[in-house]
Amino acid sequence: MHYKKSIEVCLTPALLNLYDTKESVVVVIDILRATSSIVYGIDNGADAILPVAHVEDCLRYADKGFLLAAERNGEVVEGFDFGNSPFSYSSDKVKGRTVVLTTTNGTKALHMANAQSAQVVIGSFLNLKALCNWLKGQERDVLLLCAGWKDKFNLEDTLFAGAVVNELRKDFTRFCDSCVAAEDLYLLAKDDLRGYLHKSSHSHRLAELNIEEDVKFCLQLNICNAIPVLEGEALVPLTWVCI
Amino acid sequence: MHYKKSIEVCLTPALLNLYDTKESVVVVIDILRATSSIVYGIDNGADAILPVAHVEDCLRYADKGFLLAAERNGEVVEGFDFGNSPFSYSSDKVKGRTVVLTTTNGTKALHMANAQSAQVVIGSFLNLKALCNWLKGQERDVLLLCAGWKDKFNLEDTLFAGAVVNELRKDFTRFCDSCVAAEDLYLLAKDDLRGYLHKSSHSHRLAELNIEEDVKFCLQLNICNAIPVLEGEALVPLTWVCI
Repeated sequence: MHYKKSIEVCLTPALLNLYDTKESVVVVIDILRATSSIVYGIDNGADAILPVAHVEDCLRYADKGFLLAAERNGEVVEGFDFGNSPFSYSSDKVKGRTVVLTTTNGTKALHMANAQSAQVVIGSFLNLKALCNWLKGQERDVLLLCAGWKDKFNLEDTLFAGAVVNELRKDFTRFCDSCVAAEDLYLLAKDDLRGYLHKSSHSHRLAELNIEEDVKFCLQLNICNAIPVLEGEALVPLTWVCI
Repeated sequence: MHYKKSIEVCLTPALLNLYDTKESVVVVIDILRATSSIVYGIDNGADAILPVAHVEDCLRYADKGFLLAAERNGEVVEGFDFGNSPFSYSSDKVKGRTVVLTTTNGTKALHMANAQSAQVVIGSFLNLKALCNWLKGQERDVLLLCAGWKDKFNLEDTLFAGAVVNELRKDFTRFCDSCVAAEDLYLLAKDDLRGYLHKSSHSHRLAELNIEEDVKFCLQLNICNAIPVLEGEALVPLTWVCI
């Protein structure tokens, strides 16, 4: 019988220490909006995206010709080139450039994952199929790490984790309860992701920030083929051949 | 307009520090099987149930005429009167007695909640309606604390939290994403809770322990009116009058 790899969902970074990921691929998920923008930026030809923990860390790159992106509590930090709206990561802005990025939840989850796993890649609805096809070909267990909101559970990251579980169910074993919950919530929501997310707290927060267009953008499926992967401190395009 | 109290769901004790519960009622939930057995025991006339952290703590009560209950990883610890099977908490065994109890997840969640909240009560499907009717009458916010499995998310506790959210939705505000998720999972599962839980990891664990009858018992709705409440270190019956 073919060996089945395991897939697990970690619902917030605060639970990451409960999982042994030394030999696993960790997929970092921050749908609104960090990992969607990272996928879109790498797909549009950015050389690299450097996730850093603090706004001050971004500033250290100010005179190196990098684009500086900083978001806190959903807003662009004053004085920065942009925040994490995906529209800032279009080809005309990022092609051939390096972006230094700090966000409320996404970069924190990335650094935590980086410290304790075999490989870290970036997931979003934009590259769902490309990501899943690649994961199917890896001989590693997978942990889907939801960035959440300030260490609490959030719906949009969980729905995406559920979408991945649903794509991978034939190729992986999945016994963890959070996989079951994430997949069932995704199946409930998938025909109208935007409508479903109107129930969420983040949706209320984002409505106040007037970024409805960003949300719609981030919920598009499979418009990108890029899979950003963490190499050292930088997110770069993964190069692979589908067999 | 009538003031609406808030209701939140904390999916595992590892996330409890993210919630401010100083003024809240915390409902501790460990459906399989600690809080189901506690509700059943108090409903059957136990004077009190003393939750203690360690098996050794139980032993200190050995010569006081108390019943000693200890469960670890789903099994009765050798040498104890019983574990946390609800069938051990029947009237003929516990009426007029005090039970000292330690379990894998439930007592840990209870002690954490006790240290930081206004009031701690015990929830299970067995006393769902009585609990919800009482919560409706309190002028306090509510946190539903799932005991989970070794700090990870589990389905059965989340489903019960969802059942409470569903009962209380008209009387409380609920914006947290974990409320939305718990309620939707409950609505998906409610017509066949046992069938739904066959998807869960705990179900596999419990099947190995041969306690299918316990599981069926714990999924019965509204067979008890008792609401155990923590007074000092002991769980005792809450006395209240429905207005």
